[in-house]
Amino acid sequence: MLRILLAGFGVVGRSLAEILVERSEELRRGEGLNIRIIGIIDSGGAAVYERGLNLEEMIKTKKKSGSVSHHDDYGRPGLNVLDLLDELEVDVLVDATPTNLSNGEPSYTYIRKALASRIHVVTVNKGPLALALPALKELAKHKDVIFRFSGSVGGGLPVIEFARQCARGDEIIKIEGVLNGTTNYIISRMEDGLEFEAALQEAQERGYAEKDPSLDIRGLDTAAKLVILANEVLGIKATINDVHIKGIEELRKKEIDEAIRSGETYRLIGRVDSGLEVKPTRIKREDPLAVRYSMNAVSFTTMNSGVHVILGRGAGGRETATAILRDLIEIKKKLVEVKV
Amino acid sequence: MLRILLAGFGVVGRSLAEILVERSEELRRGEGLNIRIIGIIDSGGAAVYERGLNLEEMIKTKKKSGSVSHHDDYGRPGLNVLDLLDELEVDVLVDATPTNLSNGEPSYTYIRKALASRIHVVTVNKGPLALALPALKELAKHKDVIFRFSGSVGGGLPVIEFARQCARGDEIIKIEGVLNGTTNYIISRMEDGLEFEAALQEAQERGYAEKDPSLDIRGLDTAAKLVILANEVLGIKATINDVHIKGIEELRKKEIDEAIRSGETYRLIGRVDSGLEVKPTRIKREDPLAVRYSMNAVSFTTMNSGVHVILGRGAGGRETATAILRDLIEIKKKLVEVKV
Repeated sequence: MLRILLAGFGVVGRSLAEILVERSEELRRGEGLNIRIIGIIDSGGAAVYERGLNLEEMIKTKKKSGSVSHHDDYGRPGLNVLDLLDELEVDVLVDATPTNLSNGEPSYTYIRKALASRIHVVTVNKGPLALALPALKELAKHKDVIFRFSGSVGGGLPVIEFARQCARGDEIIKIEGVLNGTTNYIISRMEDGLEFEAALQEAQERGYAEKDPSLDIRGLDTAAKLVILANEVLGIKATINDVHIKGIEELRKKEIDEAIRSGETYRLIGRVDSGLEVKPTRIKREDPLAVRYSMNAVSFTTMNSGVHVILGRGAGGRETATAILRDLIEIKKKLVEVKV
Repeated sequence: MLRILLAGFGVVGRSLAEILVERSEELRRGEGLNIRIIGIIDSGGAAVYERGLNLEEMIKTKKKSGSVSHHDDYGRPGLNVLDLLDELEVDVLVDATPTNLSNGEPSYTYIRKALASRIHVVTVNKGPLALALPALKELAKHKDVIFRFSGSVGGGLPVIEFARQCARGDEIIKIEGVLNGTTNYIISRMEDGLEFEAALQEAQERGYAEKDPSLDIRGLDTAAKLVILANEVLGIKATINDVHIKGIEELRKKEIDEAIRSGETYRLIGRVDSGLEVKPTRIKREDPLAVRYSMNAVSFTTMNSGVHVILGRGAGGRETATAILRDLIEIKKKLVEVKV
């Protein structure tokens, strides 16, 4: 049984709870995965029950009152993740808190504390990964705990796992990708005829872009994901400070129109080989990376078996929650192996 | 150390030998994979050396004389795979013999004998898989040996492994794919303006199509791969007899031209959900499956995390040999786990 502390109860955290409500019996039988969420923390405080919270009630409480900490029986207003890491016996911290690319907080402190206390960690928060992945991996290794973050790149698309398969018995020498759905939606709509501002507004109305979409537009979200791939797939100990970044803020419809007249287009591409770079890149329209709207695409150039490309929707609460589940299954599998 | 008997020394077998010559030291250090090829069999006979054949010499002998059995010191003309399975102490049979979709022979007999003798098997031969995968899997399970065939679908593109990742913590409900590079090349060239016959001739000149391209054209190669995916990914115990198959032999340039005028095109698509079907299918040109020339593309529709697509060159000696290597690494890993 895995006792889980869930930090963050936004779209992703709630989707995880929903999937567990629907599928816990099936996961128990099919994967031998027995999950108990013993604590949930959102911005208002916590809900705690060591025998396992009723997730349907938690979703209802959150919807009704804005915070799980208002639950009549299990609500604990004012408590935070650090308190509960001390108080409870936790097997895995699942971190679904919002990304902060300035200093990675508070997620960075949560993850460090969990790893230092020998608690396994699954995170989908790109902040700590972009800023300090080499150090966090080192800490996890030192403490002999598992640290996974499949959902941080590509949402539900298993990009990191796919890369590991491509690399097995071969060597990946270059990664290139369209890693941010918001900017790709904007560029696609500019291809369709909209100006930048109108396309951005539409992306916001459709819920792709945040109210402050600058992390996307300025290329920082792409850079964060590129850093994660560089570390995890190529073993390059980089942080976001090592990435040369140019966003799409200066890309104008005129340039896209001109590219299209020659059978080409632009995509915001992150690329890592010897160095790391994010920039609007002119490519052929039939290039596999020329995916449209909110799709992501990543290509892996290998030494012996050619170029492998993976495409799919790169975000979404349910998709990202599925990636968390994948990591939990992996942790459970590894723990069983160790016991044998 | 893995003692390997290599059946078949055509393009794929020789590519495997070349990769091992180039990378054996690296594979030993990086993956702990220590390989010794103790026997190679081609259509002329065998070469055998229990302390490990010199692969550079084998490649040279094959090139010069047409068969490894002509090697001065280790050549054993007239011996076949069955003889050597009896005579040698083999850990893994690597089957790189040519595909025969009529009755799967002689590969089917080789694989059965190896599994029955508790020898692990890696094959890239689609014949036995298309005709009897459920039975062969059952036999391997019964004898508690490992049976792998990554290179049989997608060449170097890790299709089966990727599907396993997509299915983890989720459920795959449909697979659709462009699984045959030859027919896709032909259709792509018809899009470019060639008639069927001219496109076929060009595919043959470029080495994509066999002299007898009927397995490709009639959709049988696609159907074989579809059967492998259905068994391995969806757990459907199907054989090629369960597939409703229509090839591209009746697809005419006129139909393609007409589709293109509406922004669509044709692809020879294999599809499995409740049933198994191969047929020329009209799709949008921006559909991720509308890959061009010798590319393959496979899409996996999942219950919770959307549609995942992978693209890549689906064939080639070096690519397929890399898939064999991936399977050998997997076998080595599993054997170590069992020992622990």
